[in-house]
Amino acid sequence: MGEKRFVYMDHAATTSTKPEVVEAMLPFLKEHFGNPSSLYSIGRESKEAVETAREQLAKALGANPEEIYFTSGGTESDNWAIKGTAFARRKKGKHIITTPIEHHAVLYPCKYMETLGFDVTYMPVDSYGLVDPAEVEAAIRDDTILISVMYANNEIGTIEPIHEIGEIAREYEIPFHTDAVQVIGKIPIEMEKKERNVDMLSLSSHKFYGPKGIGALYLREGTEIDNYMHGGGQERKKRAGTENVAGIVGLGKAIELATGNLERHNEKMKRLRDRLLAGVLKIPDCRLNGHPEKRLLDNLNFSFEYIEGESLLLMLDEMGICSSTGSACSSGSPDPSHVLRSIGLTPEIAQGSLRLTLGDDNSEEDIDYVLEVLPETVEKLRTMSPFYKSENACKK
Amino acid sequence: MGEKRFVYMDHAATTSTKPEVVEAMLPFLKEHFGNPSSLYSIGRESKEAVETAREQLAKALGANPEEIYFTSGGTESDNWAIKGTAFARRKKGKHIITTPIEHHAVLYPCKYMETLGFDVTYMPVDSYGLVDPAEVEAAIRDDTILISVMYANNEIGTIEPIHEIGEIAREYEIPFHTDAVQVIGKIPIEMEKKERNVDMLSLSSHKFYGPKGIGALYLREGTEIDNYMHGGGQERKKRAGTENVAGIVGLGKAIELATGNLERHNEKMKRLRDRLLAGVLKIPDCRLNGHPEKRLLDNLNFSFEYIEGESLLLMLDEMGICSSTGSACSSGSPDPSHVLRSIGLTPEIAQGSLRLTLGDDNSEEDIDYVLEVLPETVEKLRTMSPFYKSENACKK
Repeated sequence: MGEKRFVYMDHAATTSTKPEVVEAMLPFLKEHFGNPSSLYSIGRESKEAVETAREQLAKALGANPEEIYFTSGGTESDNWAIKGTAFARRKKGKHIITTPIEHHAVLYPCKYMETLGFDVTYMPVDSYGLVDPAEVEAAIRDDTILISVMYANNEIGTIEPIHEIGEIAREYEIPFHTDAVQVIGKIPIEMEKKERNVDMLSLSSHKFYGPKGIGALYLREGTEIDNYMHGGGQERKKRAGTENVAGIVGLGKAIELATGNLERHNEKMKRLRDRLLAGVLKIPDCRLNGHPEKRLLDNLNFSFEYIEGESLLLMLDEMGICSSTGSACSSGSPDPSHVLRSIGLTPEIAQGSLRLTLGDDNSEEDIDYVLEVLPETVEKLRTMSPFYKSENACKK
Repeated sequence: MGEKRFVYMDHAATTSTKPEVVEAMLPFLKEHFGNPSSLYSIGRESKEAVETAREQLAKALGANPEEIYFTSGGTESDNWAIKGTAFARRKKGKHIITTPIEHHAVLYPCKYMETLGFDVTYMPVDSYGLVDPAEVEAAIRDDTILISVMYANNEIGTIEPIHEIGEIAREYEIPFHTDAVQVIGKIPIEMEKKERNVDMLSLSSHKFYGPKGIGALYLREGTEIDNYMHGGGQERKKRAGTENVAGIVGLGKAIELATGNLERHNEKMKRLRDRLLAGVLKIPDCRLNGHPEKRLLDNLNFSFEYIEGESLLLMLDEMGICSSTGSACSSGSPDPSHVLRSIGLTPEIAQGSLRLTLGDDNSEEDIDYVLEVLPETVEKLRTMSPFYKSENACKK
């Protein structure tokens, strides 16, 4: 085996912050420290920086700046969309439609609203993790007040038919939210065109080479929603709290970079992904999870029979490769992934999964290295598994 | 008049981030970008940095690290404390006790809970802004589930009798929350001693020379509270969302610096404050708002008759002096301060108020400069006011 190499292949968990982004943030961590709400000059400078970032974001999403609200991240955006809509529309009904494969930042707010008397339908998904728009339509009731379906799944990369679902939601005049945390910088977003039927869209800066702790919620004009952070008059009185100016500036720069370079980025992702996929599938007793075509270009999620994903992950880490078994946010939990269970995998197979998500910093050499290390590591783990040995003994 | 000078006297609105704090943050904006939830090495490094910051915070508050939860700032901490407690204890009762001079980040969550069927008592305050603990006790009902009284007021600096109120709350077994956003780095906090009857305490990094967009909620072990951010398993499953690692590291460093140097800081604040106070009070028709002794050492809030605070603020800005009329979070609002109205000021007098809040970066020369500029500016504005002229004409 060649030299040990550091290969980061967990871009769906988080990304490094681009140097240009850090550079843009620094003045607002240093000399430009004014509170954007303050009326004097250094306050106004901060305010202007926030508004410039809002314009960058709006431009990247094909939206109006007035529809962009900064939050502390994807989780807050999702919590706001779900709870804010539920509370605002509670007199019209208490029924929410979502899917069982949403990120926990959507699922758990829904579960919480159930404890407060709301009723949630979790649409079944097929073995690729796809939601069927016709089934969404069939689930709509007179008291349905919100539909929330993610744009693309964070674990298996499956891209949901959100345009079809959005059309149905619009027809029935039900607000439609989508968690687009995994999508920014990968699929172009056009709120006034393609995504015209999406009323609320969540995003998170640290998924596209921006800083952690900052995100945004797109709220289409006229969307009926309660505030989530109550307090000062920031964000046109819709999201209280002193603005994280440096974070907001970083988010603005990051989305500008991520969306300004989409085609070239995607070409590279596809090239690397195709090689990686072909190479990994040569490993015996291995399957790709998620849809074969309708998937994010940078996401690969495999199940390897006879091994535990976590052991694989830790051995890969020893070899300098950063990967995950699923969502970073649920790592440390002994339960198998709710996404993999929802697409029909047995707990055993679900436990043997590995997610590799590519990004800007990956190279052909990274792919070479993973294709050198991964098969050996899988083999090593399998030879250590008494279960694998006995099964293979039987086959002979 | 001497040379124009930049004098920042709005430290209650926000502070500059200390260079040592920015220095501590930078590695986590650059090379150490791992998601703390990830199991591989660069994830674990981020996790360790978060835990180090938690220990710094715990040490600064005389608390256990297990009782510290990072949030996106003071506003989120307050929202969590109020709404999380209200929802968790709703079956025990729906009555909340607070004061009319709380920061909007407490007041508006309370108002919001009223729309959801809760009942809130806003305790009257005296002309100094002091709450009477005996009146708090008298307001307690069988269905009281929360008491929230701020540690010190952000506009007029009055320090509330939170220890007496805490004792009463403990006696009646009612959770007690205090917004201590203005207090960190000014009054020592000892959760296991002096503040042993406080169950929840909110703080915000950017008020003590840390970055914006990060704060914490102290939650005493056993405190009954619902989660506010639902999602991933971060913060021991109590506050979801990928950690703002750089912000958290900055907060840790900032609180270490701010509390490690308290006595010397306070001595300096008192010396500067006393000179500024004596000098400003020489201006005719001027009064100090808030309690004369029970007040933060760095806060001065004046009312000048016959002028508008906002005009004064803008003219001071022209001269390089950053000040405010009250809370930064409500600037831009045409309404007079709810705090000044609550202590009995007429709308006219409340409109003529100016808050000067001192900080680390202020010097004797800053005081000299303000004492040179402020009286002239007040005089100038008054001579422009027809109301002032006629009143003074009458006096002659």
